[in-house]
Amino acid sequence: MQLDLIPGGFILSIDGREILRHTEAAPALFVGHGEERMDMYRGNFEIEDYVVERTALTSVEISGNRIEFAVARWLPARFALTIKGNHVLTESLDASINRVWIRIAAEADEHVWGGGEQMSYFDMRGRKFPLWTSEPGVGRDKTTEITFKSDVTGKAGGDYYNTNYPQPTYISSRKYALHVETTAYSVFDFRRDGFHEIEVWAVPQRLEFFAASTFADLVGQLSLRFGRQPELPEWVYGGAILGLKDGENSFTRMQKMRDAGVKVSGLWCEDWVGLRHTSFGARLFWDWQANESRYPKLKEKIAALNAEGIRFLGYVNPYLCVDGPLFPIADAKGYFAKDEQGKTALVDFGEFDCGVVDFTNPQSADWFAEEVIGKNMLDYGLSGWMADFGEYLPIDVKLANGIDAKLMHNAWPTLWAKVNAKAVESRGKTGDALFFMRAGFTGVQAYCPLLWGGDQSVDFTRHDGLVTVICGALSSGLLGNAYHHSDIGGYTSLFGNVRTPELIMRWAEMAAFTAVMRSHEGNRPRDNLQIDQDPQVLTHFARMTAIYVHLAPYLKSLSAEAAKTGLPVQRPLFLHHEDDRDTYAIQDAYLYGRDLLVAPVWQAAETTRTIYLPKGESWVHVWTGEAHAGGETATIPAPLGQPAVFYRKGTSYQALFDGLRDL
Amino acid sequence: MQLDLIPGGFILSIDGREILRHTEAAPALFVGHGEERMDMYRGNFEIEDYVVERTALTSVEISGNRIEFAVARWLPARFALTIKGNHVLTESLDASINRVWIRIAAEADEHVWGGGEQMSYFDMRGRKFPLWTSEPGVGRDKTTEITFKSDVTGKAGGDYYNTNYPQPTYISSRKYALHVETTAYSVFDFRRDGFHEIEVWAVPQRLEFFAASTFADLVGQLSLRFGRQPELPEWVYGGAILGLKDGENSFTRMQKMRDAGVKVSGLWCEDWVGLRHTSFGARLFWDWQANESRYPKLKEKIAALNAEGIRFLGYVNPYLCVDGPLFPIADAKGYFAKDEQGKTALVDFGEFDCGVVDFTNPQSADWFAEEVIGKNMLDYGLSGWMADFGEYLPIDVKLANGIDAKLMHNAWPTLWAKVNAKAVESRGKTGDALFFMRAGFTGVQAYCPLLWGGDQSVDFTRHDGLVTVICGALSSGLLGNAYHHSDIGGYTSLFGNVRTPELIMRWAEMAAFTAVMRSHEGNRPRDNLQIDQDPQVLTHFARMTAIYVHLAPYLKSLSAEAAKTGLPVQRPLFLHHEDDRDTYAIQDAYLYGRDLLVAPVWQAAETTRTIYLPKGESWVHVWTGEAHAGGETATIPAPLGQPAVFYRKGTSYQALFDGLRDL
Repeated sequence: MQLDLIPGGFILSIDGREILRHTEAAPALFVGHGEERMDMYRGNFEIEDYVVERTALTSVEISGNRIEFAVARWLPARFALTIKGNHVLTESLDASINRVWIRIAAEADEHVWGGGEQMSYFDMRGRKFPLWTSEPGVGRDKTTEITFKSDVTGKAGGDYYNTNYPQPTYISSRKYALHVETTAYSVFDFRRDGFHEIEVWAVPQRLEFFAASTFADLVGQLSLRFGRQPELPEWVYGGAILGLKDGENSFTRMQKMRDAGVKVSGLWCEDWVGLRHTSFGARLFWDWQANESRYPKLKEKIAALNAEGIRFLGYVNPYLCVDGPLFPIADAKGYFAKDEQGKTALVDFGEFDCGVVDFTNPQSADWFAEEVIGKNMLDYGLSGWMADFGEYLPIDVKLANGIDAKLMHNAWPTLWAKVNAKAVESRGKTGDALFFMRAGFTGVQAYCPLLWGGDQSVDFTRHDGLVTVICGALSSGLLGNAYHHSDIGGYTSLFGNVRTPELIMRWAEMAAFTAVMRSHEGNRPRDNLQIDQDPQVLTHFARMTAIYVHLAPYLKSLSAEAAKTGLPVQRPLFLHHEDDRDTYAIQDAYLYGRDLLVAPVWQAAETTRTIYLPKGESWVHVWTGEAHAGGETATIPAPLGQPAVFYRKGTSYQALFDGLRDL
Repeated sequence: MQLDLIPGGFILSIDGREILRHTEAAPALFVGHGEERMDMYRGNFEIEDYVVERTALTSVEISGNRIEFAVARWLPARFALTIKGNHVLTESLDASINRVWIRIAAEADEHVWGGGEQMSYFDMRGRKFPLWTSEPGVGRDKTTEITFKSDVTGKAGGDYYNTNYPQPTYISSRKYALHVETTAYSVFDFRRDGFHEIEVWAVPQRLEFFAASTFADLVGQLSLRFGRQPELPEWVYGGAILGLKDGENSFTRMQKMRDAGVKVSGLWCEDWVGLRHTSFGARLFWDWQANESRYPKLKEKIAALNAEGIRFLGYVNPYLCVDGPLFPIADAKGYFAKDEQGKTALVDFGEFDCGVVDFTNPQSADWFAEEVIGKNMLDYGLSGWMADFGEYLPIDVKLANGIDAKLMHNAWPTLWAKVNAKAVESRGKTGDALFFMRAGFTGVQAYCPLLWGGDQSVDFTRHDGLVTVICGALSSGLLGNAYHHSDIGGYTSLFGNVRTPELIMRWAEMAAFTAVMRSHEGNRPRDNLQIDQDPQVLTHFARMTAIYVHLAPYLKSLSAEAAKTGLPVQRPLFLHHEDDRDTYAIQDAYLYGRDLLVAPVWQAAETTRTIYLPKGESWVHVWTGEAHAGGETATIPAPLGQPAVFYRKGTSYQALFDGLRDL
């Protein structure tokens, strides 16, 4: 980085890109303090800040790589920045400061992407994004009935910026990236032409900058910074992971689906732990071990499955219910987070209370990894699981490491991922056992082998339906999460909103062109259509699993590429077409590797798909073989069963892709 | 006021009450600048502030009555306060300042009332109140379907603080009042225990303080400060003003209602100007003169009515539609507000455009008062009208006085009231012609003889139904608006929400105990029950008008008292029971003068009413004659026709009140 003095201030640049420009008249740094109000309702937060002070630090004193900031020249400095390589270390010289605002130089036509796993807006320019892990919301659009009802009944409607996986990192179209190293609540505000404003509710450790001549290189740098996942397990390429939670009947249903031609790599039964019956309906029993009354002889059955090349997956989350056998063991050891009075904090999850395993205590984390995941899950025969939650750490618990839960809240998903990864590693199963998470934060990349896009509504809505999964894959992918997938058919069915056959089929069409195909019965299986209940849907699904399996050689090459370069499997169009600015805002289509362009139909009753094809290439429609020139918008027939997919003319996989027409 | 120095600061007190306490560690003054975003949709605003700077001015330099504030002792002062009598003059010494925050000393158990005409919360403690005249919203409660639908279809749902009549003035239970003299957007934040925070989006002219040993005296002082209304016109005591908008049929219907025993003082036909048919339905034709095709021989009919002691009332607002005859006249004279290009600004009111008469141009105001209201209305024979709107001044128009429309927006209701009052005065009709407004702001008291509570929904809802009218009467009454009334039966019927007979009857029961009884057919007369369509409702209404007329001697005494002392007709219970703190938060009952206590039934299907009766008096239930001790909560039968009304034992009006039982 380069620091240049100008009258009354300085310019900080990285590889010729102006990042900070500070003068007395237009300061880049504001500090002060605020008094926040944060209320949590089952993972949904109401957050408000009373900004008591926000003062421009106009006067700077520069010596070497250190810049000290003051309100005026003859006042003591209140804040300092130190340039160290591509990092800007931040330091408060005033104990009252708990809010910092930094203005990053911006250009009017700049685009920005990232922010973790964003579900509504891939290009974040023009909007403001609080970065705080939480439930993503049901509906996520204040103009819809479902959002309204979710808000009224459970403060759960959410908004465009709510996500299980925020991360204070972005990539700019100016080919640099900025990461803010902090776990505090922060806000990226991209609404102004001349600057981006970074707001942090604490003094961050540092700002990290990255620059490169290509976006791909930038992504690679971020992937090295945050951690790289192992390659996909070999077994995954065998087909879809079937999500069934029907007790031992799940095995029967799986077999029937296989008989119908469905290619299966795994059977995922989240109810492997048994059920709890509440007034809300059947829920899982949050004590992490096999329930052999719901799944008799499960261990033997898993072994039999494995012999056929099919794996078994389960479910776990970082809580233990008070009425399960594990709770008293952990409680006796003091492994739970505490309340104000120093007692085990109990969290109400809806007619049952749980303890929060305190992962800031290394003994707690080790115990959970070894005794729970290691012994009860891996040793039992599980090859993977949904590692649910991570975004719910209550902000009022007392933790073993003594750090304010408000500062640990965002850190939690990564701690949770680490516990899971450690358990997998302890059994030598890294790259074989596959767990998947929706929650995330900085560093989750190093531990979580697969993201899942969370709990979409079972519909085609703009902010909570099928299309949001693409946005989640692209944004998280740019920050070094190579593998993303979602619940085929969506998850959340509330207020009479139920799956249509079309929805399941469109979702499966998209999933065939992602890292992992996995189905889910949803939160209300009985109210919603299941894949095996409709012959058309079942046939369609079987064909999509065949497509997925057919593409395995290509997907394997993408997985190898991810391990080597950090490039994600699903990529924004601009990643390989960076001079074509018309691709910068596209978020409803993606490159599946460099050579396939996938434009899912994401609205109901559509039978065509209109898509801009990047310049400088010729794009061959896989179902007709017809070539389309890049740099133009094409409208393509896309009936059910023929998602709009193109391959790049000249690809070395042409024969494989042409083979799709025979499936 | 008393200014006392303390280490590092000062204490400012009024009559022994600490008002401002400033030290370096706990400063009372913050200044800075913000960049607001304000979007208007038909009188509903979306407002957001980007606070660029908010700096504590910790260091003070006091000389005599002048206090200069700086960030630090050796920096130039940025702001000054000068104590002058009971005023604190504010002065910015820094041109960049456009936001000022002042912390007023508060006590934890303090109550605050006022803020103009507040519809949801009479006691404002614990909440934040932006003060900006606007539509009040339909539903005004983000948890209701009607609010949601209004928001989605027209950004019109509103919230608890939206009001047509805000005013930056409050009364504290510590027996002082504070008025902020400014027309800028401001915010009263009463959410903290130790201070109230006043926020102004400009440098205000001054803070005015008032102190008294009784609340009644305080109200009297405010009434003198803001202006006092004339006594009620004599004719009003004759009965209800019937709101009908049915063309000449209105006269026939009025006669039938009179035949059924309804006592009538006026006939109010807002459609006297004729109709405009839009896709939304029938609307008024916004050109202010009699439409003799809808009301043939209106002038003669008015004269005939007058001979029977009944007055005729109409409707006017401060706009002129482009397709009416008045528009070209005003346009030729340049009387309209201008757009950015200096042309007449046109505002879309839903399939028709209007010019905004620019009341900052004295010629425009005089023309409207003389040519429109004077000649077309008063000279024609009108004895009153709804002076609608006032809260819609677009914030982007250019005004003759050169002041930013954002600063004139709040001033507009008072300018509009002044035009009406001037017209009335020009014909010597002050105290006889009666116009009523929903919009207001500081100083409207001097011009507007009667407030009306705006456009309640036709229901019993907490934030937009019957009960909100009481809150509006009490809050505005404390600030010197002696006369308040509302649309009997409510106004806004949307999304299938329609009037019930019970609603109309409960509303009429309340209205009989207010300054003026006036009915309204509502926004959708054909979809909603009208008083003359249901025999039970009609009989009930007739009896309520009889009650109103029976109480005329008492109401006259209240009107005389208002003229003399500034006390409103409807008063919070604490106004005469100031040592009984249990009365401080009551907002669903009121004193009608000192001697009657009225507790309307404001929920559906209720046949009793529970009410706290103030200490130190005995309260006689008017329908049974039963006496209830004060200081206790009583539950009283309150079937339809018997609203819970009590008189104070020992009142000189006992015989009159006892006579109610015979009606």
